[in-house]
Amino acid sequence: MVKIGIINVTGYAGAELARLLYNHPEAEVASVTGRSEAGKKLAEVFPHLASYDLTIEPELASGVDFAFSALPHAASAEACAPLVRAGVPVVDISADFRLHDAAVYSEWYGGEHPAQDLLPDAAYGLPELHREAISGAKLVANPGCYPESAILALAPAVKAGIIGPEIIIDSKSGVSGAGRGLKQNLQLGEAGESVSAYGLDGHRHWPEIHQEITAIWPEGTAPKITFTPHLIPMTRGILTTAYAPIVPGALPEGDAGKSAARDIYDQFYNDEPFVRVAGSPPATKQTRGSNMCLVFPTVDVRTGRLVVVSVLDNLVKGAAGQAVQNMNLMLGMPETTALDMPAVYP
Amino acid sequence: MVKIGIINVTGYAGAELARLLYNHPEAEVASVTGRSEAGKKLAEVFPHLASYDLTIEPELASGVDFAFSALPHAASAEACAPLVRAGVPVVDISADFRLHDAAVYSEWYGGEHPAQDLLPDAAYGLPELHREAISGAKLVANPGCYPESAILALAPAVKAGIIGPEIIIDSKSGVSGAGRGLKQNLQLGEAGESVSAYGLDGHRHWPEIHQEITAIWPEGTAPKITFTPHLIPMTRGILTTAYAPIVPGALPEGDAGKSAARDIYDQFYNDEPFVRVAGSPPATKQTRGSNMCLVFPTVDVRTGRLVVVSVLDNLVKGAAGQAVQNMNLMLGMPETTALDMPAVYP
Amino acid sequence: MVKIGIINVTGYAGAELARLLYNHPEAEVASVTGRSEAGKKLAEVFPHLASYDLTIEPELASGVDFAFSALPHAASAEACAPLVRAGVPVVDISADFRLHDAAVYSEWYGGEHPAQDLLPDAAYGLPELHREAISGAKLVANPGCYPESAILALAPAVKAGIIGPEIIIDSKSGVSGAGRGLKQNLQLGEAGESVSAYGLDGHRHWPEIHQEITAIWPEGTAPKITFTPHLIPMTRGILTTAYAPIVPGALPEGDAGKSAARDIYDQFYNDEPFVRVAGSPPATKQTRGSNMCLVFPTVDVRTGRLVVVSVLDNLVKGAAGQAVQNMNLMLGMPETTALDMPAVYP
Amino acid sequence: MVKIGIINVTGYAGAELARLLYNHPEAEVASVTGRSEAGKKLAEVFPHLASYDLTIEPELASGVDFAFSALPHAASAEACAPLVRAGVPVVDISADFRLHDAAVYSEWYGGEHPAQDLLPDAAYGLPELHREAISGAKLVANPGCYPESAILALAPAVKAGIIGPEIIIDSKSGVSGAGRGLKQNLQLGEAGESVSAYGLDGHRHWPEIHQEITAIWPEGTAPKITFTPHLIPMTRGILTTAYAPIVPGALPEGDAGKSAARDIYDQFYNDEPFVRVAGSPPATKQTRGSNMCLVFPTVDVRTGRLVVVSVLDNLVKGAAGQAVQNMNLMLGMPETTALDMPAVYP
Repeated sequence: MVKIGIINVTGYAGAELARLLYNHPEAEVASVTGRSEAGKKLAEVFPHLASYDLTIEPELASGVDFAFSALPHAASAEACAPLVRAGVPVVDISADFRLHDAAVYSEWYGGEHPAQDLLPDAAYGLPELHREAISGAKLVANPGCYPESAILALAPAVKAGIIGPEIIIDSKSGVSGAGRGLKQNLQLGEAGESVSAYGLDGHRHWPEIHQEITAIWPEGTAPKITFTPHLIPMTRGILTTAYAPIVPGALPEGDAGKSAARDIYDQFYNDEPFVRVAGSPPATKQTRGSNMCLVFPTVDVRTGRLVVVSVLDNLVKGAAGQAVQNMNLMLGMPETTALDMPAVYP
Repeated sequence: MVKIGIINVTGYAGAELARLLYNHPEAEVASVTGRSEAGKKLAEVFPHLASYDLTIEPELASGVDFAFSALPHAASAEACAPLVRAGVPVVDISADFRLHDAAVYSEWYGGEHPAQDLLPDAAYGLPELHREAISGAKLVANPGCYPESAILALAPAVKAGIIGPEIIIDSKSGVSGAGRGLKQNLQLGEAGESVSAYGLDGHRHWPEIHQEITAIWPEGTAPKITFTPHLIPMTRGILTTAYAPIVPGALPEGDAGKSAARDIYDQFYNDEPFVRVAGSPPATKQTRGSNMCLVFPTVDVRTGRLVVVSVLDNLVKGAAGQAVQNMNLMLGMPETTALDMPAVYP
Repeated sequence: MVKIGIINVTGYAGAELARLLYNHPEAEVASVTGRSEAGKKLAEVFPHLASYDLTIEPELASGVDFAFSALPHAASAEACAPLVRAGVPVVDISADFRLHDAAVYSEWYGGEHPAQDLLPDAAYGLPELHREAISGAKLVANPGCYPESAILALAPAVKAGIIGPEIIIDSKSGVSGAGRGLKQNLQLGEAGESVSAYGLDGHRHWPEIHQEITAIWPEGTAPKITFTPHLIPMTRGILTTAYAPIVPGALPEGDAGKSAARDIYDQFYNDEPFVRVAGSPPATKQTRGSNMCLVFPTVDVRTGRLVVVSVLDNLVKGAAGQAVQNMNLMLGMPETTALDMPAVYP
Repeated sequence: MVKIGIINVTGYAGAELARLLYNHPEAEVASVTGRSEAGKKLAEVFPHLASYDLTIEPELASGVDFAFSALPHAASAEACAPLVRAGVPVVDISADFRLHDAAVYSEWYGGEHPAQDLLPDAAYGLPELHREAISGAKLVANPGCYPESAILALAPAVKAGIIGPEIIIDSKSGVSGAGRGLKQNLQLGEAGESVSAYGLDGHRHWPEIHQEITAIWPEGTAPKITFTPHLIPMTRGILTTAYAPIVPGALPEGDAGKSAARDIYDQFYNDEPFVRVAGSPPATKQTRGSNMCLVFPTVDVRTGRLVVVSVLDNLVKGAAGQAVQNMNLMLGMPETTALDMPAVYP
């Protein structure tokens, strides 16, 4: 059994890691940390994790074989660096190792990057694009929840070279994506029965989406991405609607274009265990609690635009499930271990 | 007192008309119809309308001075036409008189238009663009809820000539927009805690948006509009996020462009009683139960795109409230009568 | 126009007062306070109140003719006392003047009552029981939201002497009843899609319910009341289910008992503008945004128990609407002024 | 591998069975039926079950080793009877075999019981009371969701003889308990942001609760149970609050009584894998998607009443999870197989 440490188990991503790892046949959660709740039993903070007999500690116990960090950015890099340097493989759920360029990191997150020397070795933890790098990495940067949904929606079209650079990404997220901290606009009395847009001046997930889409973008042009996140009155789930013009001639006209787009996506995700091309427009609820991402590509034939809808559970495929998938890859275990289960529907 | 008839009071728009007219000082609901519930007291079907002592009838009583129709399309035109021909002014909440071109109507709604002769005289009931026509009309086509939110989001920019034709309209609506009829995907067990896109092959509100945006579009080009509606787990409210490229040079670079865009909107809506340019990104809940539409224009300075967020209550400014506003104009009453009240927040 | 002051407009009850008073034909909100937000425009804190051109001040302006206090307990009494002593009539929405006995107040709220001398003159602001006292009072203690729903559910049966003392009050409330302050269990991610009981060791609304039920209880016995509040995943609304044994012989056996119980309630609330005996079990949504309380009494014929369901909007009939109703009475205005409007349904 | 058949997989309980059995190491879903959807792939009706490659059939395939029926009552007995008679063990999720007395069945469900001869052999599928009978049974009647929550809340106190017969059971359920069929009051626009009571003239789960509580009731008296279900604006979850007078002298006075009550519950559920006595009042969300029931007993010391709160997921411990637990027992497998997993929180 691999001994797992979870740094900052007291946030939603940390707790979700504990949930998913509970039935992992080859890994066992051995140590969990959390500053404000240190000293309490895990079951006290999270009654749904009462089957664990663990105490929340201020620091990770020595002797863990593998670590997840679910700390906020900056603090996370500081906690991960010594582990990585000591040879403990790490999946960092924070944003700290997602952006390859430390200058871009500083621009969006402020301050100097706390562990720049590790950036070159960090793999971006999206197996659908970087499976090989992840498998060989000692440090994996787990994607942000919005980037996960946006990149999975667009990657097949980008790689196939069928879309032009004018990209709009309009995402709708449940409130758990904003974390467990107290905020006025997340109180049920405010967020319930309401929708709002935010991050209109630039959301931190934009550079991440931009980096990954640019990396697979055909040479000669550069994508121009607008990304708008919205807060939806629900707990879990992200639906992303992505729009891009189809390169003239890249797809047949009319309904045949829809089939052609679909074929591209089918082929791209054919062997992926956790992305499925849906037969009809999917709902976030179809992925609730599961590591599945459903993608539905179509064409607006009146305007010649590709429209792609993706849905996933922001705490699973958008966070903890993706992290366990990455761990499985890093440790050479079957990729779907502990993750192959249907969504909790309805 | 003007005697009001509401045809098909038993849907959400019809019931909302009764709610809003309850305190109208110069109008009184005198007759209400509804086929499946005919014979019942209004209070039996809608306990919140118990203050009305009205029986739901199969047909409108003769002698009404003004009528609203909240019937489904086709049936609505058939019910409105004889009234209009008899000189009774009508606001039709259905889609029947929104599209000026009967051929477009047939394409999107199927069948022949039941009252083509009335189309030329029908005003499109959006006072912010057509106040004068509405004031003089005997037949007003109340806008669809999505078009209302989309057109109000875009009209100032279109009229100012600052945006190019590549327009994306991404709308998020509560379930009451889909009506009171029973549908599997509207059951709380399905729609709750879930988001989905629909109408990806073309939603009936698209030609309406297209008609109205085209009508104010600068000569020489034509707008290319993609419109995607989404179902949100809430009862009331629409938030529309609209995207369009800024015509090069039309606005100053950087943050100054944001101010310039805002000035255009401020000026456009300056005298409007029911559209307000918000100081920060608005939430649908801020308009719940009220006839107010909040609009927030900004610029994505990284891509040079205008991004506009609008919010409104789909049953009020998006349906019954707009209809009462139109009635006030048609009858020469102060436009805000019975509509000037704060939203029910939280 | 009566010049109104609202102390602590920045909570939900305070904001709701501003909403309801907006269309009051004889009163005008002239001054609003709120400590943490002092200096801001009211519209900045509450965009739905943008029609008000008021600045939130640290202290009430002099010259108001009538004041509402929506401060927390203790602070509220301290703010109300000087006003009352200066002859300004006050409705206190806090708990400070609800309990007649200062010792009971200390037991449940802690500390000495800050203005004991005013207790004898304070009327308990439930017009259905104390209309006359309210009309003549200069200081009215607005009922708590749970007591409002519980007392209205039980009063007719208690006064008629048909129930025994073994009373269970099981109440279900939306989260707005817990106020606008930040709490972990009120975040949408926690409160959404969940129900929980609280206050099991004794909720502060218990002594208030107990006082009012005892006051109308037949001599010779004393009611034994258990009260359990529950948190429901919605914003507004309280449903109370009250249970009590029927005094043997007090009602006919079987279904006739149901009619007899209903007759008692019909008669009791016959002339009440804001309580209606519902024809079928009511839903909280039927009262949303309105000052109406719906009551449904029935009999469990298998056990001989009276079961009464009441619903109301906790922020209206359970707080601000009740307060305006009390103000109308205190000022000799028609009791329903500014309050006679249908609920916002759906 | 045991070959499993699910009759009527197209309801919520049926679909949830498929979800839970997906990872059962010793059982495999081999055949699923559903009348209206027969001929469709399971994945078409339930995208979250896309990992199954099964077609919905009109009748169960021959050769299944074990069957679950999730049909409506009457139809279920008719479908189960031939299987049971042919030696195929069955868990019936409908109400058909829950009531031992066919006359009581007729009174509450109407019509003759379709398979009275099987009633004596049917075990009531609540392992916490009937583990041995279930283990030896060929036909198990899975409890109703409300009875499950009510009986688990009360059984320890009843068995310990500490409560008197005046029992109130006030239950709050999410909408999935009402099934997947279309109903006006379950549409999100109606059920959302609303609470209502129903079944006030007698709910079909009452005789079931009554039967089971009576069976363990001390001789000499009989319980007098009032049961009121409520519809809560959420999808999954039941919270039951049960009230009963403490037999004088049965528990120590004051807070010591709370501890004593708790001890009784702790002892009763000590070895139960799926009932846990909670350390603080539980929320339904803590059991979402899991087979756990949390119970919290306390004492209202002012009135000498026992108050017990129980929470569970109505589709898991209240239906499909309980059914799998029963199957495990009937087949001699470890009771927790496929069910030992944390709740999906938040």
